[in-house]
Amino acid sequence: MDISIIAYVVGMALSIEGILLIIPVICALIYGESIMPFILTAAVCFAVAFPFTGVKPAAGSLFSKEGYVATGLTWIGLTFTGMLPFLFSGSIDSVYDAVFETVSGYTTTGASILTDVEALPKGVLMWRSFMHWIGGMGILVFMLALVPFTGGTQMNIMKAESPGPSISKLVPRAADSAKVLYQLYTALTVVTVLALIALRMPVFDALCITFGAAGTGGFSVLNSGCASYTMAQQVVITIAMIAFGVNFNFYFFLFIKRSKLAFKSEEVRWYIGIILASILIITVNICSHGVYTSPLIALKDAAFHVGSIITTTGYATTDLNLWPNLSQGILVLLMFIGACAGSTGGGLKVSRVILLAKSYKRELAVALHPDIVKKVHMDGKPVEENVLRNTGAYLFVYLVIFCISVLIVSMDGESWVTTFTAVAATYNNIGPGFDVIGSMGNYSSLSDLSKVVLSLDMLIGRLEIFPIMLLFAKDTWRKF
Amino acid sequence: MDISIIAYVVGMALSIEGILLIIPVICALIYGESIMPFILTAAVCFAVAFPFTGVKPAAGSLFSKEGYVATGLTWIGLTFTGMLPFLFSGSIDSVYDAVFETVSGYTTTGASILTDVEALPKGVLMWRSFMHWIGGMGILVFMLALVPFTGGTQMNIMKAESPGPSISKLVPRAADSAKVLYQLYTALTVVTVLALIALRMPVFDALCITFGAAGTGGFSVLNSGCASYTMAQQVVITIAMIAFGVNFNFYFFLFIKRSKLAFKSEEVRWYIGIILASILIITVNICSHGVYTSPLIALKDAAFHVGSIITTTGYATTDLNLWPNLSQGILVLLMFIGACAGSTGGGLKVSRVILLAKSYKRELAVALHPDIVKKVHMDGKPVEENVLRNTGAYLFVYLVIFCISVLIVSMDGESWVTTFTAVAATYNNIGPGFDVIGSMGNYSSLSDLSKVVLSLDMLIGRLEIFPIMLLFAKDTWRKF
Repeated sequence: MDISIIAYVVGMALSIEGILLIIPVICALIYGESIMPFILTAAVCFAVAFPFTGVKPAAGSLFSKEGYVATGLTWIGLTFTGMLPFLFSGSIDSVYDAVFETVSGYTTTGASILTDVEALPKGVLMWRSFMHWIGGMGILVFMLALVPFTGGTQMNIMKAESPGPSISKLVPRAADSAKVLYQLYTALTVVTVLALIALRMPVFDALCITFGAAGTGGFSVLNSGCASYTMAQQVVITIAMIAFGVNFNFYFFLFIKRSKLAFKSEEVRWYIGIILASILIITVNICSHGVYTSPLIALKDAAFHVGSIITTTGYATTDLNLWPNLSQGILVLLMFIGACAGSTGGGLKVSRVILLAKSYKRELAVALHPDIVKKVHMDGKPVEENVLRNTGAYLFVYLVIFCISVLIVSMDGESWVTTFTAVAATYNNIGPGFDVIGSMGNYSSLSDLSKVVLSLDMLIGRLEIFPIMLLFAKDTWRKF
Repeated sequence: MDISIIAYVVGMALSIEGILLIIPVICALIYGESIMPFILTAAVCFAVAFPFTGVKPAAGSLFSKEGYVATGLTWIGLTFTGMLPFLFSGSIDSVYDAVFETVSGYTTTGASILTDVEALPKGVLMWRSFMHWIGGMGILVFMLALVPFTGGTQMNIMKAESPGPSISKLVPRAADSAKVLYQLYTALTVVTVLALIALRMPVFDALCITFGAAGTGGFSVLNSGCASYTMAQQVVITIAMIAFGVNFNFYFFLFIKRSKLAFKSEEVRWYIGIILASILIITVNICSHGVYTSPLIALKDAAFHVGSIITTTGYATTDLNLWPNLSQGILVLLMFIGACAGSTGGGLKVSRVILLAKSYKRELAVALHPDIVKKVHMDGKPVEENVLRNTGAYLFVYLVIFCISVLIVSMDGESWVTTFTAVAATYNNIGPGFDVIGSMGNYSSLSDLSKVVLSLDMLIGRLEIFPIMLLFAKDTWRKF
């Protein structure tokens, strides 16, 4: 294994993190707060990165294995540097808590151990939300847009960091794809911020809330979450969340004026279909159970939370613990389905669910006619068997990690609803779950062991298992 | 599709059921109870079966599709006839309840809507437990041992009714396999009954409890479940349950003196390993939480319930709601893993879990070295890709049905623990779950809709999805 190129990638990512700390510095300056926590953190980033990036690695590509390892190590490195502003500013005392909050930020989970977010300095809150924005599209994808690498290296890094069962490049060169992705991402972000400001949301809130919606993160800057924003602002947030859960290929096709291709996407159509069906059932359910008297408010809240949870954002405007069982059950199911592949959202991804459903349909046909030969198609094209195979195996290991996590967290002795949804909401990068860690609660009361497990779950969920699991595989570290 | 052969198979199965009613008749005669409920039921069986079996179907084999359809229809037919003794004897009033109890019997689930089993006539209780014994190995497998069919027909019926990812015939002819299976099954049953009688259990209890253990069912004949049996009797029941969860290939190999082959079975080794590990963790957990003061009693109860739940039997000696979270979590996990393929137990089956784990290991290797070509092996032999593919698709549809069932049952407004484990315990054919439907509770308080859904879950779980799902597939009923 070529260690030098892995070190170079990790070093470059940390350097970029150091530079991006300029955002909270500006915020802190505006609000007259201390900028030292961020300056010190940036210094640490550069100091750690310097020996790695000093020498450009020898020519040659980074292979599949190194792509995964570099991605896994980068994200762990980002966690241990990204948490420093929390510690330096005294906003969080415990290292376990700081790790949890930082992983939650970068992985766009939005689960928090903070009991009073409004007490934090604005600069720290800005950094906390900005981590969502960086983590959403991926810091390594950002790096690819800036730093030249060979084609193989680009592909293997993108494959490791981008979510979804198979990677589809927008344009032939991966570096160009990365640039296009970040341009679309930035454009959508700017539009959302402007819309919220136009609706008289304070600029600080508009920026932080948009970073959270764009990355499908979910950290809020008010103790009441999104409950105190106006109806119009909540509607804009709903639309923004759902928009950032769409596969970015969709926007790219719209951008290059191939709208027919865009709307042909089976994943986007299923995604919208699932959202509409869920909103409908939940609206009827919460109205008929008398939780809401106004059908319009019920519809608004149903749409907000369906959008929030299927995109794995996790913003909330009300206490979901008060909703009837059926609505809660549907929301938990949406946690697992997740957003589209190639978006900033988490979960299993809609495309994986489609692939699995189609695989099953094929097995049903084979059961009827054992001699049949049938290919699975997606968007009109046949899907390679190894992608289907990988998707099945992914589902299995996904469930195994889920079960082990639930068992460990269960030792805290919290209710089963808390335990189950804590794992579901972190592993799928949503944020709040139900009961104690519900939309109006937080993760502060869990044990340190549970926080470590859930932090790992967030990382494993965001990077889709392999980059983290491979760090623990013996074969990875074998020379050959 | 050849309807005549399907009708013939269903008719033969109903006729056999009619004959098997002799068992409760004998029991009722001994206890001086009315035999009319059984005589009437037998009359119905023969009356329904007569037009189907009167004409032997034209030569020709039953194909894969017809095998599934015949199996699905047979089990539905058995349900609506098998429930008649409950109704005729006045033991159960509601048809929903009678269907639930009967499906629970035949599918070897053991979930009950009865609040006072001791009030029932002995003959009815005997029939209730005897359904476990018939359903465990399968009534169609029993039929194959008795009625001559062509080779293709035999195979396709066995494939449809026997659990597991792939069918392994013990001997070349399926009819001979069926005979050997029932001989082994009967021998093990007799040994268990004699052991329990030797330990001074009443003969009636010994028979019913053994039928439940053999079929991995779990209906008990006392309101206290198995709590009032002696320690020695409980140990025998534990051993019996675990023994009936073993793949019957194991016993066949022992029987033909190929013990080396028997112990080479990866599935049996994993099964024993999972059992031992679970017993160890649970014993430590329940002792350290102070639920038990005697480690020996703790070990006995841990072994009893691990054996009871992984084999999907569902007998209980204590109220598991009092156990700590970790122990409960492990037991719920065991519900899903289930017993070995080729046993009388339910759940996903250990061999499916092994196949999925090995598929994942291969994907990990492919991630490291994309050009690698690797086969998955089981018991030293390569596994065909279509078996792996089918297992992945099975896992997915298994989960989809599970989630839909949970959502429907959630509308009852019971706790999430009740809702989740009610579906887990019926779908995997265990019986009791936790909370309201726990080991000392029952299913009587659920709504009729939930009872219908859970009855379907039991059938789908026992027949491993396809035979029931295909009944609803349009393609199944198309002529060609």
